Amino acid sequence: MSFQIPRGTQDILPGEVEKWQFVENTARDLCNRYQYKEIRTPIFEHTELFARGVGESTDIVQKEMYTFLDRKGRSITLRPEGTASTVRSFVEKKLYANPSQPTKLYYIGPMFRYERPQTGRFRQFVQFGVEALGSNDPAIDAEVISLAMNLYQTLGLKSLKLVINSLGDAESRKAHREALIAHFEPRIEEFCSDCQTRLKQNPLRILDCKKDRDHELMETAPSILEFLNDDSKKYFQKVQDYLGANGISFEVDPGLVRGLDYYNHTAFEIMSNAEGFGAITTLCGGGRYNGLAQDIGGPETPGIGFALSIERLLAALEAEKIELPITSSIDCYVVTMGDQAKDRAVSLLYEMRNAGLIAEKDYEDKKMKAQFKSADRHQAKYVAVLGDDELERNVIAVKNMETGTQEEVSIEEVISYLTSKL
Amino acid sequence: MSFQIPRGTQDILPGEVEKWQFVENTARDLCNRYQYKEIRTPIFEHTELFARGVGESTDIVQKEMYTFLDRKGRSITLRPEGTASTVRSFVEKKLYANPSQPTKLYYIGPMFRYERPQTGRFRQFVQFGVEALGSNDPAIDAEVISLAMNLYQTLGLKSLKLVINSLGDAESRKAHREALIAHFEPRIEEFCSDCQTRLKQNPLRILDCKKDRDHELMETAPSILEFLNDDSKKYFQKVQDYLGANGISFEVDPGLVRGLDYYNHTAFEIMSNAEGFGAITTLCGGGRYNGLAQDIGGPETPGIGFALSIERLLAALEAEKIELPITSSIDCYVVTMGDQAKDRAVSLLYEMRNAGLIAEKDYEDKKMKAQFKSADRHQAKYVAVLGDDELERNVIAVKNMETGTQEEVSIEEVISYLTSKL
Repeated sequence: MSFQIPRGTQDILPGEVEKWQFVENTARDLCNRYQYKEIRTPIFEHTELFARGVGESTDIVQKEMYTFLDRKGRSITLRPEGTASTVRSFVEKKLYANPSQPTKLYYIGPMFRYERPQTGRFRQFVQFGVEALGSNDPAIDAEVISLAMNLYQTLGLKSLKLVINSLGDAESRKAHREALIAHFEPRIEEFCSDCQTRLKQNPLRILDCKKDRDHELMETAPSILEFLNDDSKKYFQKVQDYLGANGISFEVDPGLVRGLDYYNHTAFEIMSNAEGFGAITTLCGGGRYNGLAQDIGGPETPGIGFALSIERLLAALEAEKIELPITSSIDCYVVTMGDQAKDRAVSLLYEMRNAGLIAEKDYEDKKMKAQFKSADRHQAKYVAVLGDDELERNVIAVKNMETGTQEEVSIEEVISYLTSKL
Repeated sequence: MSFQIPRGTQDILPGEVEKWQFVENTARDLCNRYQYKEIRTPIFEHTELFARGVGESTDIVQKEMYTFLDRKGRSITLRPEGTASTVRSFVEKKLYANPSQPTKLYYIGPMFRYERPQTGRFRQFVQFGVEALGSNDPAIDAEVISLAMNLYQTLGLKSLKLVINSLGDAESRKAHREALIAHFEPRIEEFCSDCQTRLKQNPLRILDCKKDRDHELMETAPSILEFLNDDSKKYFQKVQDYLGANGISFEVDPGLVRGLDYYNHTAFEIMSNAEGFGAITTLCGGGRYNGLAQDIGGPETPGIGFALSIERLLAALEAEKIELPITSSIDCYVVTMGDQAKDRAVSLLYEMRNAGLIAEKDYEDKKMKAQFKSADRHQAKYVAVLGDDELERNVIAVKNMETGTQEEVSIEEVISYLTSKL
């Protein structure tokens, strides 16, 4: 019998994993500079949280969740995204009571959606996201967007497109909603059944429909931007001004919408323009959600955040042929000859590692020549050769693999010798 | 309606999460020195993998797994430990075909067991573990044990106890098994029903029984050490010699057993002796499992590894009152006065962060005094004060918060000024 990985998931193996580590370390470092702090919420939550926090009517909740009953019969769901859990924790742990506001958080971790697996789309995928809770300042919208752009730029991506929009405040959205209903209602029977339901529930989501996207009424649909009231216009203008001052280019796309009621004001997406990146070009999506904390039982709290997939980020790097600066060389490989030397090397290696050196030896009883080959494979900067003969004289031969020069040093001094050379 | 975290799980919040980051970074750094590479396997696997890889008869598989059906009716289980998945990946991805052997892997990630939550025991917990696959050299046993000890020692733990044992090879185990049956069989009806089943299935597990641990036959049970054949004795002696050469103290405890058939030779546990650490004193457990890869469909491959819980590691640090060297100061807090200065600060902050500085400002329209308070809360090394007046003169006042000295520099130069001072 042989066992296989579940469909739609992947093992990330040495050789690949270093890219993930590099990207995640870069994200963590950026978050530190921007003063976003990590939060770790559980892999699963009570199902109701996502039904409420992501939205009953979304594809995610209706079709894509890994939901099951625990041993007590409670419905549990593997998290499909990170915002609901983060805001749940913000509310439950009363982070709003902390004197330092806004609460600026980030997360990196696996999310789960039961979708048809395809290139670049997995059932378990890793999201990096940030959430800033507690500020209504358009400067924080610009900060969140800038942080996302910064990550991509720091990693070397060039073919980026930032698209922003405003969904306005509640008043603006209400006016827009009415205009949308008036626009679509007379010919709603030409639309798919989902859209017919959406008309009364949430007509904004019609604009997002994949089936009806070519219907002529789509293009002529009233734009949210025409319905923004003065406050909303001013807010949106500020966000644009700040982005401009940061030197970040963007396009305004009134078609960029978010279906859920608690979304408002700023919405944004970052896409890759890179050739050969494939059909799914969105790298990152985010927006403001001033109603969410209250919706899940907390005080009224403005919030804004984004989420991005590490898988897609890595795919974009590949599409742009960007090599991350990953090094995998080691400091010293210890080659031994003879049984006593082999034994002595075990504790020598232990001491080297204790001193902070990246060190390795053979564990397969290889011949000397094969040990040297192994040292090459590890890209050893130095090879230390210890035979029973050297051991008797209490020395070890250290070879610089770049220059080829070799010196004999006493075994006691080899660590300080290496440390001084590296 | 308000939402709660699932029972037995925890949110790791800013203020706590830095400890996790520190411990994990230390583990990653050690793994690099020892040349163990990270592997990331999925959060869930097909249930059969754990039934086989962890063992049908174990408590984990019988009582503690989060098992559910996916949308296609396949039985899926949230991983209760890391070894089975790692070896599954080693086999499925043919890592044994890599010219660099042994394959030395580590993982850090959440594991799931449905147990009664209690102090220090969670249903979702984080394990760090390593696996070395492909070597039968006792030096690798010593390396794996040394790495685990190194992590605890590097973090400052002092009250550690390392216990080792040998389960011998197949021949030795068979002889021991027969002696165990002969020892327990005459009075097996005095033991619990689990033990009665274990007698024929796997009598070694009787020694691990929590219910019967005070039965007089336990103490007089034949020790595996009496049944080790010459090869097994030699192997065990080598492991002890290497540990001794590394200066690592240990005790041999013939009562330390592992119930599963594929375990053999070295078994070990690391415990905390710290006062007030509580009832669960085991920090880390590991051992050799030469039969596992073959058991799950791969080639015969020797293997050894350990797993340890980060939760317990942190609890041990707390019990020993060890403060990790975590700093949370920021480089610069920008205080503003006036609307124009506030706007200008947004892009100034952006530039500071782009230059690598850890920088923050206010996003709540706070008065100047409250902004200074916020700077204190962030432990700012410098505070840069920008008023509309300064803005007009194109300068900014930079205050060193440690010395209290203040200088005015031009806005264009403030970043290089700060970079040179920090």
